Amino acid sequence: MALTLDGPLADRSAWATGERCSISRAMGVIGTRSTMLIIREAWYGTTRFDDFAARVGITDAITSARLKELVQAGILVKRPYRPDKGRTRHEYVLTHMGDDLVPIVLSLMQWGDTYLQESAPLSVVDEDSGDTVRVSVTTASGAPVDIDRLHLRVAQESPTTVGSVIVTDAEES
Amino acid sequence: MALTLDGPLADRSAWATGERCSISRAMGVIGTRSTMLIIREAWYGTTRFDDFAARVGITDAITSARLKELVQAGILVKRPYRPDKGRTRHEYVLTHMGDDLVPIVLSLMQWGDTYLQESAPLSVVDEDSGDTVRVSVTTASGAPVDIDRLHLRVAQESPTTVGSVIVTDAEES
Repeated sequence: MALTLDGPLADRSAWATGERCSISRAMGVIGTRSTMLIIREAWYGTTRFDDFAARVGITDAITSARLKELVQAGILVKRPYRPDKGRTRHEYVLTHMGDDLVPIVLSLMQWGDTYLQESAPLSVVDEDSGDTVRVSVTTASGAPVDIDRLHLRVAQESPTTVGSVIVTDAEES
Repeated sequence: MALTLDGPLADRSAWATGERCSISRAMGVIGTRSTMLIIREAWYGTTRFDDFAARVGITDAITSARLKELVQAGILVKRPYRPDKGRTRHEYVLTHMGDDLVPIVLSLMQWGDTYLQESAPLSVVDEDSGDTVRVSVTTASGAPVDIDRLHLRVAQESPTTVGSVIVTDAEES
C-alpha cells in the first residue's frame, strides 16, 4: 500500500525533499534508541539523572549527552530542585514540544506490541473511560480515514516557496 | 506531563521493562534514520533499489543492508518483476506489517512539521474528505482522549506472566 502522489509530485523522478523532509529532521533529533527511551522514561515520570541512566540501562556519559541534546532541542527542560537539607540538584521534565512526542512513542509501543511481542506487557489507559488508548490516523476533526486512500500533496500553506524547495532541477527546467 | 502509574507500577524503583519494552524493540528494528527514510520512500511508492538509494541519499552498500534487514524483519517483501525484454529485477513493497508503520511515519512528519519547519512542505490528505490527516490518540472506538489523563498499567491479557517479567527482584522480595 502506498500513497497516491498528486500534482507536481506525481512524477517521483522530478522531485525530492532532501533535508527539507520533516521525517528526516525528526529522526535527526529523536532517532536513536537511547534518546527515545529517555523520552519514554520522562513520559513514565522519571525526572532524575541517575534514574534515567538506570532505567534505560545506559552509561552516565551517554545519559549526560542525551539529556543535554534533549534540553537543547527544547524537548526537556532542566529545573533545579533542592532535596531536604541537601544540595541543589536538577530534574528533567518534558516541555510542550516533548509532550507532543506522545503519538510517536505510543505508535512505536503499539506496533511493537502487535508485531514484536507474544503479548503486550503494558497498556496505556484513558482515565475517564478506562479504555486502552491507541494511535489512529484521522482528519483534523477526528473522523477516521482509510489509510489506503491517502494522497501526498505539496502543502497549500506556501505552495510557491515549498515548490521551489522540494522540486528539483529536472522539474523546473 | 507524565503518565499516572497504576498498581504495581506505582513504585517506579520496583520495576523495569528492560528488553521486554515494545518501544525499545521497535526502535531496534526501525530506529535508524536511513531505515525510517526507506520506509518513507516505500510509502511514497518507491519500489526499486536504485530509487531508494538516490531518493534517501545513501550508498548502495547501506541501501542493500537496510533493504535486507527490512525484508528479514517482515516489513518489506522482495518480489521479482521483469521489465520489457529485460532481465528479471526485484521490487520492494510494504507488507501489512509495514503498512502498520504509517502512524509512526505520520506522527514523525507531524511533529517535524510543527517544531522543525517554518511551514510544512508536504501534506497527507484523505481522498474522500480532502482534509489533511493527522495522528491522534484515541480509545479503541476512536473517541478522543486527553493525554494529560492517561494511566500506565500492567496489561490485562496476561498479568501473571507479564508481572514476573517486568517486576524486578526488588518487588518480588
